Amino acid sequence: MAKDFYGELQLGILGGGQLGRMLIQEAVNYNVNVHVLDPDKNAPCRKLCNRFECGSLSDFETVYNFGKELDMITIEIEKVNVDALEKLEEEGVVVYPQSRVIRLIQDKGLQKQFFKQNAIPTAAFQLISSRDKLYDTSIALPYIQKLRRDGYDGKGVKKISSVHDIESAFPEPSLVEELVDFEKEIAVIVARNDRGDITTFPLVEMEFNPEANLVEFLISPSTLPLEVQVAAEEIAKKIASDLQIVGLLAVEMFLTRDGQILVNELAPRPHNSGHHTIEGNLTSQFAQHLRAIFNLPLGSTAARSNAVMINLLGEPKYEGLAKYDGVEEVLSREGVFVHLYGKKYTKPFRKMGHVCIINDDRETAIKNARWVQETLKVKA
Amino acid sequence: MAKDFYGELQLGILGGGQLGRMLIQEAVNYNVNVHVLDPDKNAPCRKLCNRFECGSLSDFETVYNFGKELDMITIEIEKVNVDALEKLEEEGVVVYPQSRVIRLIQDKGLQKQFFKQNAIPTAAFQLISSRDKLYDTSIALPYIQKLRRDGYDGKGVKKISSVHDIESAFPEPSLVEELVDFEKEIAVIVARNDRGDITTFPLVEMEFNPEANLVEFLISPSTLPLEVQVAAEEIAKKIASDLQIVGLLAVEMFLTRDGQILVNELAPRPHNSGHHTIEGNLTSQFAQHLRAIFNLPLGSTAARSNAVMINLLGEPKYEGLAKYDGVEEVLSREGVFVHLYGKKYTKPFRKMGHVCIINDDRETAIKNARWVQETLKVKA
Repeated sequence: MAKDFYGELQLGILGGGQLGRMLIQEAVNYNVNVHVLDPDKNAPCRKLCNRFECGSLSDFETVYNFGKELDMITIEIEKVNVDALEKLEEEGVVVYPQSRVIRLIQDKGLQKQFFKQNAIPTAAFQLISSRDKLYDTSIALPYIQKLRRDGYDGKGVKKISSVHDIESAFPEPSLVEELVDFEKEIAVIVARNDRGDITTFPLVEMEFNPEANLVEFLISPSTLPLEVQVAAEEIAKKIASDLQIVGLLAVEMFLTRDGQILVNELAPRPHNSGHHTIEGNLTSQFAQHLRAIFNLPLGSTAARSNAVMINLLGEPKYEGLAKYDGVEEVLSREGVFVHLYGKKYTKPFRKMGHVCIINDDRETAIKNARWVQETLKVKA
Repeated sequence: MAKDFYGELQLGILGGGQLGRMLIQEAVNYNVNVHVLDPDKNAPCRKLCNRFECGSLSDFETVYNFGKELDMITIEIEKVNVDALEKLEEEGVVVYPQSRVIRLIQDKGLQKQFFKQNAIPTAAFQLISSRDKLYDTSIALPYIQKLRRDGYDGKGVKKISSVHDIESAFPEPSLVEELVDFEKEIAVIVARNDRGDITTFPLVEMEFNPEANLVEFLISPSTLPLEVQVAAEEIAKKIASDLQIVGLLAVEMFLTRDGQILVNELAPRPHNSGHHTIEGNLTSQFAQHLRAIFNLPLGSTAARSNAVMINLLGEPKYEGLAKYDGVEEVLSREGVFVHLYGKKYTKPFRKMGHVCIINDDRETAIKNARWVQETLKVKA
């Protein structure tokens, strides 16, 4: 495939958000014709592609019709109509990641069962069909309840601390999971191409914004002990191999206080925890995803320098046409890379962009990142 | 201006080729709405902008109508209708580089006079109104004849070795220039913003393809003696300052065998001799051009590693729908970055893309670049 497609390949992306946008910035280098489907007529990709279609990602007909003339389809969000993708696959459209992988990952219950079946370390869990069943789960209180489907960016997750909380728990099919006493959240992005080559990006450490429950601050490469790094990368490789996925897979993990690594969840696409790779690593996650789905040799993931990534979230209390305070100021400091996502409207904690801060000295990178965080604000 | 435009600024680019394309890849990070005018309906930018207009860059009405609703206009090619730009400036559209700078640089005769008036070192020259005048020029044979207008990528330049060559010399207004016995061709890209900040990229050394008369191979940073580097950068800064240009300016120079630096010519825009900055430097030339025209602080131009850039030229003898041989192979080597320009048709020596090769070791970078050059071919 690789040799023929330059200038000819018609690639569809399900989702036209920032991940699609950054994927297009990279796809330009390979003459890929990009088609985008997104329900938002103001989606960040709308003006950067050969064809933009405004339509539902969960509707069978819409996804099927969008894809049927394309050579290849990939995703930048998991919440898509998998039945349509399966039919497209049957009809010869290449879908990477494969529909069966998306189907599995869409359902956090199936994900957890997959971990269990493949001896991948993960927190103890139980599948729950309805709220009533929470009263006699085998998992001890306090625990975490997660919706099986459609959770996203911290939505669909609740902490259940006592039996009183069960009244306000999610009524939908869910899973409950042992509360993990973790020291750090860590992530590894792994890529696998169709010939089975597998490469991981160096382990990153994350800091979450507890109020928004979003990755807010990410440090690459990790300075955790080498054995932790190797173990986490081996887990990510095993998952990619067990899934036989083609494309990028983000593996989010907990490092517990007693040094255990537990897999939290998967995302079969470019991921927020890999944005720093654009400036921080030899190959960006977006370039790597393209290499993987086009069955090209995977690129070197070596870090070029310390990189800290911060999400640029809509300020609390501001909603409306986005205005950016402090862009000029942060650009005056060396090694600060601003990426705005082209979103017209801001709302509290909406991901409006990210900033990557690189520096040969790790502490300076972190210090600069904190300064950027205080200086750059999205208001309305 | 900087603070207000995120998401609102309407930027026009005259020319929709690879320079515009790479400028757009960067402009995406700042939510700039990009409008492009190009005479080729298949121009590389056509699918990457808010509005693509197919039309002549030299026609007054076309350029004026394209620009009159925009906030700002920049160029990726000098051969544009400057009268239209001047009128747009009068009507309040910001044009960077300014129309008077483009007018001066469009005419190699005016360029040379500008050098002379500002004591900028350049080869001795004489302006020639018609071919007949070549018989009694003060410049000794052999010399170089250059068309005053519309020379591009080695076109419009002739070596006149003897009086017999004069018969086939250009009949149009031209200049003749002393033949420079140079050791190396070198270039400095300088940026200046509206508040007068000026920054240069590190000096680069170029190797030309003598058959195509195009930059084929470029090495950054230069290992020439520090005093040469400093002198070349000072010349570039002086030119930017004397011109009061806003935007990027590529200054091509000769280093003579006796160690003199002579300015050859200027390009007031991103330039082929700066493509390596995308991966090789902290700020790319495209990011720097945007910073300059938006009056933002200029970025650090520090080299991140040794970088060698090669142009990917259409193979001689091949003409038609472009096919790329060896992309997969070159991507298997670490530090190789392929940029294809989205041109549908190839012809001999057409610039179809470029490849940047980075390595901490300069000799390895050069060796890998030579290998890429042998491996990657554009055929039809």
